[in-house]
Amino acid sequence: MYSALKHRVYLANIALTKHGLITLTWGNASEIDREAGVVAIKPSGVKYEELSEDDIVVLDLSGRVVEGSLRPSSDAPTHLEIYRSFPEIGGIVHTHSRFATVFSQAVRAIPPMGTTHADAFLGAVECTRRLTPEEVEADYEENTGRVIAETVGSRPVMDVPAVLVSEHGPFTWGADAAEALKNAVILEEVAAMAWHTAMLGKEREISPHLMKKHYERKHGKDAYYGQEKR
Amino acid sequence: MYSALKHRVYLANIALTKHGLITLTWGNASEIDREAGVVAIKPSGVKYEELSEDDIVVLDLSGRVVEGSLRPSSDAPTHLEIYRSFPEIGGIVHTHSRFATVFSQAVRAIPPMGTTHADAFLGAVECTRRLTPEEVEADYEENTGRVIAETVGSRPVMDVPAVLVSEHGPFTWGADAAEALKNAVILEEVAAMAWHTAMLGKEREISPHLMKKHYERKHGKDAYYGQEKR
Amino acid sequence: MYSALKHRVYLANIALTKHGLITLTWGNASEIDREAGVVAIKPSGVKYEELSEDDIVVLDLSGRVVEGSLRPSSDAPTHLEIYRSFPEIGGIVHTHSRFATVFSQAVRAIPPMGTTHADAFLGAVECTRRLTPEEVEADYEENTGRVIAETVGSRPVMDVPAVLVSEHGPFTWGADAAEALKNAVILEEVAAMAWHTAMLGKEREISPHLMKKHYERKHGKDAYYGQEKR
Amino acid sequence: MYSALKHRVYLANIALTKHGLITLTWGNASEIDREAGVVAIKPSGVKYEELSEDDIVVLDLSGRVVEGSLRPSSDAPTHLEIYRSFPEIGGIVHTHSRFATVFSQAVRAIPPMGTTHADAFLGAVECTRRLTPEEVEADYEENTGRVIAETVGSRPVMDVPAVLVSEHGPFTWGADAAEALKNAVILEEVAAMAWHTAMLGKEREISPHLMKKHYERKHGKDAYYGQEKR
Repeated sequence: MYSALKHRVYLANIALTKHGLITLTWGNASEIDREAGVVAIKPSGVKYEELSEDDIVVLDLSGRVVEGSLRPSSDAPTHLEIYRSFPEIGGIVHTHSRFATVFSQAVRAIPPMGTTHADAFLGAVECTRRLTPEEVEADYEENTGRVIAETVGSRPVMDVPAVLVSEHGPFTWGADAAEALKNAVILEEVAAMAWHTAMLGKEREISPHLMKKHYERKHGKDAYYGQEKR
Repeated sequence: MYSALKHRVYLANIALTKHGLITLTWGNASEIDREAGVVAIKPSGVKYEELSEDDIVVLDLSGRVVEGSLRPSSDAPTHLEIYRSFPEIGGIVHTHSRFATVFSQAVRAIPPMGTTHADAFLGAVECTRRLTPEEVEADYEENTGRVIAETVGSRPVMDVPAVLVSEHGPFTWGADAAEALKNAVILEEVAAMAWHTAMLGKEREISPHLMKKHYERKHGKDAYYGQEKR
Repeated sequence: MYSALKHRVYLANIALTKHGLITLTWGNASEIDREAGVVAIKPSGVKYEELSEDDIVVLDLSGRVVEGSLRPSSDAPTHLEIYRSFPEIGGIVHTHSRFATVFSQAVRAIPPMGTTHADAFLGAVECTRRLTPEEVEADYEENTGRVIAETVGSRPVMDVPAVLVSEHGPFTWGADAAEALKNAVILEEVAAMAWHTAMLGKEREISPHLMKKHYERKHGKDAYYGQEKR
Repeated sequence: MYSALKHRVYLANIALTKHGLITLTWGNASEIDREAGVVAIKPSGVKYEELSEDDIVVLDLSGRVVEGSLRPSSDAPTHLEIYRSFPEIGGIVHTHSRFATVFSQAVRAIPPMGTTHADAFLGAVECTRRLTPEEVEADYEENTGRVIAETVGSRPVMDVPAVLVSEHGPFTWGADAAEALKNAVILEEVAAMAWHTAMLGKEREISPHLMKKHYERKHGKDAYYGQEKR
């Protein structure tokens, strides 16, 4: 069952490595079937070059394994918490990609420095607060999801498709796993550019009117970037 | 029609990815047929790995689609404005390549620090002024072309084959799309070297006599670099 | 003889190049067969693209060649000293990978800045003291092993699977050559992230409770990362 | 004629691109046949992917073309000047590889920061003085060779197999083109490591006794690195 869902999750996981976002087994992609109430996700600690579609694990939203013989990613409770918090989200990706992780380690938001950023993100990509010792001690992965939701706050979640987890790394999302993957790719490049720009001593962010223009020509109601949806 | 033109534009677009200048769909190459008065350009938002020659869109200089079933690049009005401003230009490339974009984000010119720069560019690669809110609000892409032309100013445009657009990224040009592509490749490497040199605290630019020598042995009237044109 | 051992050492050496940790011939992997009392290691100065399984040299723990017609790696005495010091160690890798070597050159430990680090290393990756002129003059390679052992000190060696040798480069280890290789890959990425984080001016290390949590969910007695050992 | 010489020069030029030292056509390798008194070198401005063995140009030491239908590299007079100055040199490579060029642009020597450096270079890799306007005006390329020889000075040239040309880029040499190529590869990695080490604020160079030890175990009269020459 769920073979189409598992296929898409498999492809998104493989694509992570092709885009150079993955060292060893660090990272995972998932997608939810809202009607069936199940999430497909990468198994824990399996090498990408050995991963097959059959290895993809299917869970219900409480974390019970519905299909698959392997353990799900240890980050699965984080994914589930995000899916439960935001009904609009259809796919989630977590990586330890270098530059996004560097901002996470520095506990710093990625400031919007140019149109490359504004084409995908409306404003800075925020970093969560640090988790308390209690939040780390019990239900750590679930609490990671909670602090992500807390950071998104009341903003429309699809305008904020990425959050950096403090001292850890980035999570991105989208309408499906493929879009979450795309946002992970964009985030890493945007983080790299912001890092290099910061090194030049630049502190002033992109002009607000230019940020808005670029975000809206791609994501606004009168978007004119790309081809019409068929 | 225009199959040779479309073929060259297709090749230049594909070459952008081979040179590592492109993340996802960010970037576009175009070429003009001055006699026919048409410009061929990449369609908007199409993945490079799915791009075919038939997808290339042909426009007249007013922006009307003459051939092709897809929307042209959203940056097409910028290309057209540059072609209208400078009759010598035959091809244009726009990318978000990392280091050139970093200088754009910092709203800083790329200073000429060595012969690698001087082999292609006579003096700094300038960055445009920021566009005003009004210029961004209406005819944004066309105004981007105008501010590029303003930055070139009265200098011979072929001695200034690249400009950084403030808070955005680089545009390069040449006699055809292939030359514009070549200048985009050079610009990115020159930007990377300038960035790393700046980090070492070096501020003094290349000696003017050495800059002139290198530029002229490649581009002057007595150029002796490369093979004789056959 | 020792063909399985040599095969594993061959594979680990080849994998070093695939992970981009090697320039030219710089680096070597070894593994010990504790029962037989022999160590298999890469021959000295042989190009990776010409390396075959038959080239792998087998030594006893005193350094006498037991099998193979080539000279062992010039770093073999360092490997042997580490194997003699720590009976738990089954495999060792040495590289000059860029970022780990940069910290070695700076004679600085790699501080734990995030969970990527804590997933593999409990605390900073330490850098040895400088060797004295006397230690360099006689038995240099053996003394390199001694100063590594001195740096590990009384900590459990498997919780400290990497040390940077001052002004030189990293050594990593594990239960076998494959695990030592994996730790070399992790170390390089962790070093790269720490370097870039340091450039952002971040000095505060990862919260201790988060470091402990991540290390223990992978390596503690109740580890729940990855699949159950079969 | 000279087919073995041309073959080796062809291979060294192609290897430059495989090692990632070349952008576009920037760089060239040559080798001398001292008995025949001829030098084989890459033609000027030819793309590496189109280069064939037949394109390699053979010159005598005065720069007269002895074989080949293409123009030699515009840097040929620099190569010839170096061959005339140092009879021990058998092969020369010039590149614009990123990090070595960055030090050239900064007009800074590459300081010896670790054993990676000391395995190949005894002391800093020096940068030439700037050429005077007169030296650039007439016989520029030959004067580049002269200022390289001036920088080597009275040291044994084979202990100093690389020099950075001020505001330009690196030249390396060796017993033949393959060794010059190898030194170009080492130089780039050593430059990258020195740059990153400098960013960490490290100023103290490698301990002199360690530098000497590493250089001599590879290049001294009692060298014990690598396999015995057969």
